[in-house]
Formats: sequence, structure tokens, C-alpha cells
Amino acid sequence: MGIRVAYQGERGAFSERAARRLMGEEVETIPCPSFEEMFDSVGRDEADCCVAPIENSLAGSIHRNYDLLLQSKLTIAGETNLRIVHNLIAPPDVELGELRRVYSHPVALAQCTQFLRTNRTMEATAVHDTAGAVRLVMDRGRRDEAAIASDDAAQIYGGRILARGIEDNAQNYTRFLLLKHSERMLPMSPAEPRRWKTSIVFRVANKPGSLFRALGTFALFDIDLAKIESRPVEGRPWEYAFYLDLVGRSDEPVIARALSNLGEMAETVTMLGSYPSRW
Amino acid sequence: MGIRVAYQGERGAFSERAARRLMGEEVETIPCPSFEEMFDSVGRDEADCCVAPIENSLAGSIHRNYDLLLQSKLTIAGETNLRIVHNLIAPPDVELGELRRVYSHPVALAQCTQFLRTNRTMEATAVHDTAGAVRLVMDRGRRDEAAIASDDAAQIYGGRILARGIEDNAQNYTRFLLLKHSERMLPMSPAEPRRWKTSIVFRVANKPGSLFRALGTFALFDIDLAKIESRPVEGRPWEYAFYLDLVGRSDEPVIARALSNLGEMAETVTMLGSYPSRW
Repeated sequence: MGIRVAYQGERGAFSERAARRLMGEEVETIPCPSFEEMFDSVGRDEADCCVAPIENSLAGSIHRNYDLLLQSKLTIAGETNLRIVHNLIAPPDVELGELRRVYSHPVALAQCTQFLRTNRTMEATAVHDTAGAVRLVMDRGRRDEAAIASDDAAQIYGGRILARGIEDNAQNYTRFLLLKHSERMLPMSPAEPRRWKTSIVFRVANKPGSLFRALGTFALFDIDLAKIESRPVEGRPWEYAFYLDLVGRSDEPVIARALSNLGEMAETVTMLGSYPSRW
Repeated sequence: MGIRVAYQGERGAFSERAARRLMGEEVETIPCPSFEEMFDSVGRDEADCCVAPIENSLAGSIHRNYDLLLQSKLTIAGETNLRIVHNLIAPPDVELGELRRVYSHPVALAQCTQFLRTNRTMEATAVHDTAGAVRLVMDRGRRDEAAIASDDAAQIYGGRILARGIEDNAQNYTRFLLLKHSERMLPMSPAEPRRWKTSIVFRVANKPGSLFRALGTFALFDIDLAKIESRPVEGRPWEYAFYLDLVGRSDEPVIARALSNLGEMAETVTMLGSYPSRW
């Protein structure tokens, strides 16, 4: 039986592209209506793993998915970075001037504000999914309706791209994490990854210098950091959790030693995963 | 002449509430259609200052506004934190069961996904502004249309709240910054702030331990950190800028000394502002 990868959205979603890039073109991809249901599908063993967007270069970290990851007890098994290109997609033969309505996910509509401002004859209608918007428009087959979605969605549902790359800002990348149960084995890509990363969340006492000392555990062993972000701890004003990505594998002796030292001084350390990075 | 505060959105926007909380109920608030135009209105001296959302507790940092702040050369003069409560608002006498369409900003629609899923008779339509959605619905006066927006917007346009607090997650806070030209004097609130903050962006050499040493400049003087976030530098893979909020005023001797020390070791240090915090 093939590998089953759950993702949020319908066929042709950006998450589905990320899933194939991470696990191969031939995997079985399982669409889920929400992130909660996507995590649940792995929890109930209906999928072997799932793919979650975790940060966008313009919008920042998607804290909601960090929260679901922490609740789920899944572990990170890989990551990829996808350039987000939005296209205006309509049934074949429809022309731009005929359009009166355009469907997409609210965040995609927000990322195409300039295009929608200069094409005011189109009313923007929010639906739950970019790819689902293309399916809807193709099912209805009207001459005055279009969708905003990926190349993939246009191809899957047979839509024609009337305008390509209509997002406001081309520096629009989303980082996706591959998540699985820690005991589950997944086939690994034969290609050597560019590097490995290890992601953790930790809390230290709320006093000056505590973050500095915590980072000292990594500086001591010349471990490189790839990301750091503080986030207030819910219900505890002025307390912070730190989300940290290290360069290296958790089973390398220096990383293991540094994490052990951090465990001595931090109030909590949670391992999110150690995984190959394929950017 | 009163103080003129620019904000993005229409009358009744969350940003307008933040503007009044920061500068007083009696200020003149100036609505702007986009963040770019809001920054421009301060640049052209059509407003004395402006109010920009900079991070949301669920969605993370709004990097786009950090970018506009860096380009604008404005300085941070204050901050506040606003709980975001979304309400379903319709003309008086309209009942929930009559509704077939609901207007709001794409991000607000995305934050009310659960409500829209359980009320599938309503089609969600994206417009450029939450408060503008209420104005639109009240202007049209139809019995089957509603908007999602703030209390303020309901009151300003005479709408009735049919459902209160329909956002998916109650831990929904947005932090707003007050921005002005550095030489412009603004009247200060007579109330003593809880504390002061100083915000900077810096870059250090891309090698292990460089962030640790940079934070050492603050640990050396027992300076507390309120936020840290790394962000990739555009066009320079694996290089990062660090966004840091310190607790204290930039003219306190220890803060000034620490920033001077950081200047010696960092490639660049940009001061974003030193300001009273009113949370």
C-alpha cells in the first residue's frame, strides 16, 4: 500500500503540491476540510503523515498550526518551501472583461488586493479553499465567474489561466512541515538533503539574561540557529515561549549535549522534530 | 488644530479604536484605503501620525508593516494591544434565519470559519474593510445581508448585532504601533505608562554564536527582552535580520550603552523607536 499524506484543502491546493514535493509524485494525497481534521486523520491512522503550512514570508508564523502540532504530539519529519503564485482561472473561452465574480480563499483574496482593486467589476467571494474555488467555477460553467488558485488547480479541473501571478508581492513563500507519529517509519528520499534541522520550543524563567544563557548552550558547541521567535504564554502575562530551529540532527553528539544542557536550565523543553531540509 | 491620526480602513475599523485608545477620544482620525496610503499621508504631512497593526496573537507578525515602517523612516511613538471581537451585524429587525450573504474583510472571514461553516445558508463575500462592510449592508438595507465587524462599526452605522464574538478563537489580540516622524512632537498621555519599550532591527554575521554574542550586550546590563523574531534577509539565503523589543527607554544609560556595544559587533542596527507601552 502506498503512503497516505493528509493535507488541508481540495485537489490542487498548494498543500497538495508541498505533499508531493516532500513525499514523491506517486503518493496518495488525502484532502481534509480543516487543519483540525487533518491532524485527526493522522491521529486515527487514516493517513501516514500530513503536511502543514507553518510560516509565510509576508504574513509570518502560522501560530495556530504550531498550537495544533504541540497538542497533537506528532513530530516533524521534513520541510519544504513553496513559492505561492496566484492565478485567475476561468472556464475555457471566457474573457477577462466578462467576469463579474471571483471566488477564492480569504487569505488568497487578501494577497491579490491590487489586482482586485484594478478590476472592480469583479466581486470577490470567499470560499474555504483556493482549489475548491476552481472546482466550483468549472462545475457551474458560467461566463462571468472565475477563481484565484494555483497552476495545479487550473490543470486538474480543466480551467484556463486568464492572468498569471496576480499576487501583490512576488516574495510570497510558504514553508510546509511534514508531520508524522514519532514511531512511524516513512520512506526517505534517496537524495541527500542540503542539511538537517532540529525544532524545539522552550520556556525559561522570566528574567533578564535567561534567553542569553539558554542560547549559550548552543553557542558553546558552535551550533547554528535557523530561526528564533518568542511568543507570549497564554494566560501568563510577560512570560514567553521560544520557538527555535537549530541546524543539525538531534542525534549528533553536540546537539544532544546542547539540548541536555538546555534541559538543565529551562523550565520546559519540547522537541518538535529533527528532519531533512529540502528547500 | 487637533491631532490627525491616519489609519487603514473605514470609520469603525479596529485600527480607529486603537488610534483613539493611543491618542485620546477627541483626535481627528483619517481613514486610508491601504497601508501604503496611510504611511504616505504621514509622509506628506496630511496626518501627524498613524496607527499600524504589527502582530496578531494567532496569525503572527505582520511582516508587510515592518517592511513599510523600515522604508518610511517613521519612528514608533507608542503601542497598544486590542482584543479582536467579531460580530454579525445587520439592519434592525433582520433575523439570523433570513440571511443569505455576509460581507467582511478576508482575514475577518477566515477568523470566523467555524461560524460560517455552521451557517451555510450565508455566502461569505470579501470586501476591503470590516467597517466598510457594515456601511455597505446598511446602505443597501436588504433583509438577507449582514456584515462581520466591530461593535464600533455597528454603532456608527446603526446596525444591530445578531451574534456577538463569532471569532473561532477568543485569544485573538492585535498589537498596534503609533508611528510618527522622529522630529514631530505629539502630546503625551498624562497617565504614567506601565513601562517603556525600545524596538530595533539588527543583522549579525551568519555564523554560529553571533546571535548569542549580540544578546550578550543586553544580558550584560540585565536588560529584559520583550520580543525576538528572526526573519530571512530577502535575496540573501541563510542570512537573517533580528527584530528585538527591549524593556526600557533608549536614553537610559544602560540601554544606550548596550545599543552602542551592539553597534560595534553587528553589521547593521536600525532603531525603530523608544515608546511608552499601554497594554
